[in-house]
Amino acid sequence: MHKTTEMDMEKNILEENERIADKNQKLFEEKGVRAFNILGAIGSGKTSLIERLREGMDKRIGAIAGDLNGKDDYERFKNKDMPAVAINTGKDCHLDAHYVNHGLESIELDDLDYLFIENVGNLICPVDFPLGTEADVVVVSVTEGDDMIRKHPLIFSRSDLTLVNKIDLAEAMDVDLNVIEEDFKEVNPHGTLIKTNAKNGEGIEKVAEFLDIPYSR
Amino acid sequence: MHKTTEMDMEKNILEENERIADKNQKLFEEKGVRAFNILGAIGSGKTSLIERLREGMDKRIGAIAGDLNGKDDYERFKNKDMPAVAINTGKDCHLDAHYVNHGLESIELDDLDYLFIENVGNLICPVDFPLGTEADVVVVSVTEGDDMIRKHPLIFSRSDLTLVNKIDLAEAMDVDLNVIEEDFKEVNPHGTLIKTNAKNGEGIEKVAEFLDIPYSR
Repeated sequence: MHKTTEMDMEKNILEENERIADKNQKLFEEKGVRAFNILGAIGSGKTSLIERLREGMDKRIGAIAGDLNGKDDYERFKNKDMPAVAINTGKDCHLDAHYVNHGLESIELDDLDYLFIENVGNLICPVDFPLGTEADVVVVSVTEGDDMIRKHPLIFSRSDLTLVNKIDLAEAMDVDLNVIEEDFKEVNPHGTLIKTNAKNGEGIEKVAEFLDIPYSR
Repeated sequence: MHKTTEMDMEKNILEENERIADKNQKLFEEKGVRAFNILGAIGSGKTSLIERLREGMDKRIGAIAGDLNGKDDYERFKNKDMPAVAINTGKDCHLDAHYVNHGLESIELDDLDYLFIENVGNLICPVDFPLGTEADVVVVSVTEGDDMIRKHPLIFSRSDLTLVNKIDLAEAMDVDLNVIEEDFKEVNPHGTLIKTNAKNGEGIEKVAEFLDIPYSR
């Protein structure tokens, strides 16, 4: 009899995820909700990005906050009057389509135009788990150094948009933005990289434009 | 016949890791090498910590640099005249005892007194995979915000020492060090937290003292 191997198990998990991601995608389409998957390391500025977008959008916007533990980001979304769900993954280093599907049970999609899904903070695990969203946006911060892109090529090559955030700190951190841009071109020659400062809103207009989101500061 | 489940598979993997971690530990003892597992998110300052310790130690010190891709940290260690090995994990979000065991084939333990193992950058996956080292040291940076500890309680409760690095940037980042310290006490009431600035060496003496490493600036 065929023995289940680690490889089979991984394949099954990924296939199952694709299946549920398709289901989520259909649900978003049915409900007329545009959903985005926001990725990036801890402290890169994912939550701030969503807050800034929210402030400039005259639309009905919800959020899902994925974290190992706690409700910090969920509370931040609530404070911006966004319907929100906190998903605590415990030890899982990424959201998957199934987590999101469960999360959608606690949020009324009929009342939303947009949904931002903030993934668990790291540049590694979320790569293999599409959620059924329209686009993946990766946020990195210059405080992470200038080698984060070449250290994690996969996530940057697969994502639809990359933001280099906290650019106001580049000089203080002794980080060369040109190095980051060159590495990005290497990893994703036709991709788009936008420099942002999610604290003061710099660059967020360009992000909205790229994602075709109606936005005005 | 018993069907292999995801849970069984995980248990097998963790047990196998423990077995090889024991093997590594025995090897370190035999060779008289003190080994440390350095954990933390991307850009928290793991490499800088090792560089600073190295500068203050009149000992034979080697390093293992764990990353998804590339040789950046490996090159930095080489530039400090440290025998080093780069382990590229591809998609794995942590080193495990097996990776380290393989890495040890390329480094001459007889020529070393100390070995610093820099784990893959994130606060999630490495938790379950002991490497056979004497102690686990987690490095976080204030640039990650002030909620990283309560978002990742497990790694901080299990590690032997936690460093809050880049403290010079706390004010600029609008981060309250007291919040971090209080969260840490909650998660690990008997644990030790040291504030550092690995760029200029602040606090590194205390780190060395805690780990019982002979060090002088």
